[in-house]
Amino acid sequence: MSVSAHPWLGTLLGDAETAAPLGAEAQLTDLLKVEAAYARALGDAGRVSPETAEAAAQAILAAPLEPDRLRARTAQDGVVVPGLVAQLKAHLPGALHPALHSGLTSQDVIDTALVLGLRRVNDLLALRLAALSQALHDLRRDHGTAPLMGVTRMQDALPITAADRIDAWALPLADHAARLTALRPRLERLSFGGPVGVLPEADRPVAEALARHLGLPHPGKAWHAMRDGIAEYGGWLSLVTGTLGKMGQDLALMAQTGQVALAGGGGSSAMPHKQNPVAAETLVTLARFNATLLSGLHQALVHEQERSGAAWALEWLLLPQMTEATGTALRTAADLARAVRRLGPA
Amino acid sequence: MSVSAHPWLGTLLGDAETAAPLGAEAQLTDLLKVEAAYARALGDAGRVSPETAEAAAQAILAAPLEPDRLRARTAQDGVVVPGLVAQLKAHLPGALHPALHSGLTSQDVIDTALVLGLRRVNDLLALRLAALSQALHDLRRDHGTAPLMGVTRMQDALPITAADRIDAWALPLADHAARLTALRPRLERLSFGGPVGVLPEADRPVAEALARHLGLPHPGKAWHAMRDGIAEYGGWLSLVTGTLGKMGQDLALMAQTGQVALAGGGGSSAMPHKQNPVAAETLVTLARFNATLLSGLHQALVHEQERSGAAWALEWLLLPQMTEATGTALRTAADLARAVRRLGPA
Amino acid sequence: MSVSAHPWLGTLLGDAETAAPLGAEAQLTDLLKVEAAYARALGDAGRVSPETAEAAAQAILAAPLEPDRLRARTAQDGVVVPGLVAQLKAHLPGALHPALHSGLTSQDVIDTALVLGLRRVNDLLALRLAALSQALHDLRRDHGTAPLMGVTRMQDALPITAADRIDAWALPLADHAARLTALRPRLERLSFGGPVGVLPEADRPVAEALARHLGLPHPGKAWHAMRDGIAEYGGWLSLVTGTLGKMGQDLALMAQTGQVALAGGGGSSAMPHKQNPVAAETLVTLARFNATLLSGLHQALVHEQERSGAAWALEWLLLPQMTEATGTALRTAADLARAVRRLGPA
Amino acid sequence: MSVSAHPWLGTLLGDAETAAPLGAEAQLTDLLKVEAAYARALGDAGRVSPETAEAAAQAILAAPLEPDRLRARTAQDGVVVPGLVAQLKAHLPGALHPALHSGLTSQDVIDTALVLGLRRVNDLLALRLAALSQALHDLRRDHGTAPLMGVTRMQDALPITAADRIDAWALPLADHAARLTALRPRLERLSFGGPVGVLPEADRPVAEALARHLGLPHPGKAWHAMRDGIAEYGGWLSLVTGTLGKMGQDLALMAQTGQVALAGGGGSSAMPHKQNPVAAETLVTLARFNATLLSGLHQALVHEQERSGAAWALEWLLLPQMTEATGTALRTAADLARAVRRLGPA
Repeated sequence: MSVSAHPWLGTLLGDAETAAPLGAEAQLTDLLKVEAAYARALGDAGRVSPETAEAAAQAILAAPLEPDRLRARTAQDGVVVPGLVAQLKAHLPGALHPALHSGLTSQDVIDTALVLGLRRVNDLLALRLAALSQALHDLRRDHGTAPLMGVTRMQDALPITAADRIDAWALPLADHAARLTALRPRLERLSFGGPVGVLPEADRPVAEALARHLGLPHPGKAWHAMRDGIAEYGGWLSLVTGTLGKMGQDLALMAQTGQVALAGGGGSSAMPHKQNPVAAETLVTLARFNATLLSGLHQALVHEQERSGAAWALEWLLLPQMTEATGTALRTAADLARAVRRLGPA
Repeated sequence: MSVSAHPWLGTLLGDAETAAPLGAEAQLTDLLKVEAAYARALGDAGRVSPETAEAAAQAILAAPLEPDRLRARTAQDGVVVPGLVAQLKAHLPGALHPALHSGLTSQDVIDTALVLGLRRVNDLLALRLAALSQALHDLRRDHGTAPLMGVTRMQDALPITAADRIDAWALPLADHAARLTALRPRLERLSFGGPVGVLPEADRPVAEALARHLGLPHPGKAWHAMRDGIAEYGGWLSLVTGTLGKMGQDLALMAQTGQVALAGGGGSSAMPHKQNPVAAETLVTLARFNATLLSGLHQALVHEQERSGAAWALEWLLLPQMTEATGTALRTAADLARAVRRLGPA
Repeated sequence: MSVSAHPWLGTLLGDAETAAPLGAEAQLTDLLKVEAAYARALGDAGRVSPETAEAAAQAILAAPLEPDRLRARTAQDGVVVPGLVAQLKAHLPGALHPALHSGLTSQDVIDTALVLGLRRVNDLLALRLAALSQALHDLRRDHGTAPLMGVTRMQDALPITAADRIDAWALPLADHAARLTALRPRLERLSFGGPVGVLPEADRPVAEALARHLGLPHPGKAWHAMRDGIAEYGGWLSLVTGTLGKMGQDLALMAQTGQVALAGGGGSSAMPHKQNPVAAETLVTLARFNATLLSGLHQALVHEQERSGAAWALEWLLLPQMTEATGTALRTAADLARAVRRLGPA
Repeated sequence: MSVSAHPWLGTLLGDAETAAPLGAEAQLTDLLKVEAAYARALGDAGRVSPETAEAAAQAILAAPLEPDRLRARTAQDGVVVPGLVAQLKAHLPGALHPALHSGLTSQDVIDTALVLGLRRVNDLLALRLAALSQALHDLRRDHGTAPLMGVTRMQDALPITAADRIDAWALPLADHAARLTALRPRLERLSFGGPVGVLPEADRPVAEALARHLGLPHPGKAWHAMRDGIAEYGGWLSLVTGTLGKMGQDLALMAQTGQVALAGGGGSSAMPHKQNPVAAETLVTLARFNATLLSGLHQALVHEQERSGAAWALEWLLLPQMTEATGTALRTAADLARAVRRLGPA
């Protein structure tokens, strides 16, 4: 599902580093981490002996899974966890079964594993945001005094400087960083509610131990059917790519009117004299892509009853694409800022 | 453009109170408020005499505008301000002209007037959010112990209580309130940058006086082409309606399976025995409506150069509809919570 | 709900002539036309006497309705028909009641009335499409040989003529006209199925008479929950505005680079020397607007069971806006084509 | 980019058979087919000798490409063709170079290769549409007389039969088939216009020969910047999944109320007694997914000037996902129809 795997579009439109934390391999590892942490949590809460808990956790983490065997079960069950637990059960000696999965529901495991992946994605995106801010700061320092014609409503208006235009690309980044910091606690949270999302009072110690093992806060209630954290996050991703799309659109227009010189522009198969502003166009593409997909994440807020298979799977199809697009856009924008050789008239 | 004006759909799908602050009449008043505050700011900054400033401000506020004469000019100019200023100029004695609009650009006036309207909208939405929280609190208090069958993936799962389901409607509301509080300073801000969005250092005292007169913070730079505050706000509106859409979907399903009795359900022209869960369905409609429109607000982030007529007008078409839908949904949800006569089996 | 009613944005972004056939006044008339035709159909089929049928039809058409009294009922019922029928019943003598509405369901009446409005909309859009084709033909005739620089990927490529660029605006219009002709029979159809959409065999003569009176084909089954005709039509509207958005984007870019001179461009409140390509920008706005709303019409294809209140009302909020946007865009594009004074370099 | 490659979600949400014709391997083959056919067309038109043409065509088809070497060039050029042609040039003896690519532009090759893939996709989708129609016909034959309670607006209304509900799933399929037949000639067309999309009169014989070799009609003008065929097709895909989403929603609701028994329902990791209607939910997911992505394809109609890199790449990201989702939904719906063991009350 990641563009980065595409033989030739992979680097243009995708980003392997951003895609990795939500890729199948990493997700499988994270699913096991959640199951293992749960075994330990059962031990901490006295549901199983400490030895059983630790042995189960280690056996879970070391289980030789066969990912492709998960496919048929997932097509039938709609979710990977039953097939995964069946493989684990076959691998673990019966004495460890009491420490395996009992009391969890599929969505607890998948949503929590998703969050473990998103935590790494967000660490990375925060770094890229900072790197882009730095690149734009450097660009402003090096070219900010260049004269540009200010353009409003597609008409030359009054002279400005390059710094004035760069500011419109750079200033929102600080707000984006603050927004990310503010939303992460609403997104990167344990989800543990059992079959119908209602944690018995007696399971609260298990929840707390599980949260501690995973380093995630434990909200009062599993968010199986409260998806505002996910949709809010999708909005943040699209805000970021939107800002970068504006930067890309500006640079593409500047390329058309000769107001920018870029190193490494794209070549044409028919016209060797051209230097296409490919990276700038890509930023526009990714902005419109995320703006499109965001709508579906908000449609998925209408999660019916205690858990919705239909709305949930819609998130699976959309969210990893949006995180990857955002990582690609941040990388591309920083590269583009560094590729500027001239701003303003030649 | 407001649904509330529709002769029969007006109350079902619209909300006059939420629509009013962004309605044409209020917007005209807010445009004049901005122009008047600007006259006073020019006075404060010593650009015109205090007497001229005050006389101009009062004349602007009292100007007998002819809204319909604005139509032809707007069709030509793409924006109402040139026609508005022309009417004001004709109304004000020449001696006051130096205090009129000079140094402002259309987008300064319109974006700032928009924000004045949004401030009132947000005050109202915050109140409705609190009222809905209270209504759901009361509902939980009165019916929370009723037994329900928990349903996951469209199948009966395990018994829960009504409180468990209500929690999924109510808990996100506190986060929504916190999100609104956090985003308002990024939205409700002065926009003042002049023709190309670059405020000369010498105009900073004018900006500060203008911000003071309007009670708005003054960000460093006009946000003519940085629309993340608007798009973020649209996301918030859709988060709210999404949560309420989930509540509506649940109640519609409960109505179908007889798990809720509602006062005042809709009648059928053909089947008098039916009591349709109209309000619940409406919440689903409004959630999907906002989720749809949100995409366009994010497309509009790609504002090219110093000001984009194309992307800006797209906001005009979308944002007021989203605020009204949110107001309608909040009102409808609170009414619906209060209309519950029974939860759980009959 | 129509932009055309907005005091100043009404002509820029709206179109009263396109909005009228789906406006409240016209819809009310069309609802009555359907009810009257149904009375006559009952007469034709021998369910009531010809005299009763005709008297009822005439009384229905002449009924002094109070639209605002429909509002409260619609808010409760979710649909205007029960309130409307109640007013008609109060107006008609009891002897005519057997010819009133009996056997119809609300959705039969509203969907069929919608189609009566859409038929007029489509007649108008077809005319405007032809007028635009003519205007572009004239533009090509008058300016087609002007030299332009072909631009690919935002870079000057090779010389072309104005005709080459105009062709990309004009050629799709013929396909759009053919598409409209092909889809109209799938859209402009009677919907008559009664409460649960299942027409008893005995009512087939009524259906045929009703179809004849309204001049609409009668599909085998009411399309209460089969909304592909509506969604397909929405797609057509957005195809048209998309083509015009491309024309607008091109002309806006040509305005920026001085490759076009337009009569009547927009003025600026701050910079009298500017002539903004307002109409061109508006075409981009309307293209993105329809592309946004289209998604919601397709979401509304998921109409559950025999009739969905939630998905149906979503169409009400979206479709009339899309038809109006299309009418506005067609009018604006033709005006714009006629406003060209020069293409190519000055 | 295809879901079908995902280790466990691949079969649930993806479809390898539908994904294959637009997969990287097939696309590479199709790109070579276009280049080879072009070599032959140059021969037919007398631009190169017949021997050179044929030798070049065969060398092109047999060229040992290194797909991964295309990645870096694509990231730079924004398009795969320059890198591909460079590899071909290195592979072909210099004597054959006159028959290689000269006169084509990247977009000619990629759009035409896309169409070769879409032709196979559409053949497959047409077959699946027919298979689904048959499956629903059989379902109606076997279970059509079962009594169901008709449900309107989420309330029991009046009794119907299973056949009545099945009709709403099946009847639109015939229209979908007719729509596909009608649109294919507007989609499956040669695109050949050279660098700026303007075919010299002298190249018309080349175009005709190229069209003949590929079995594609040759429209008058390359559709580099006229994307209505693509957007219309996206609409068709979403109409199909929308109809199936309605079927899925109905069956999920029937599963919830016990009105259907399905073989092979999904298992739960926590509740072995449940049989989740996974396939039905999946149809809803895919309907909402396509309805979401469709918006982006319509945004991409705003292709600026002679060729737009930004809008074009947006299509690449969206269209293959929509075709695959449609293939998955058609397969899933037919499987679901065949899995019905009972309709109506137990």
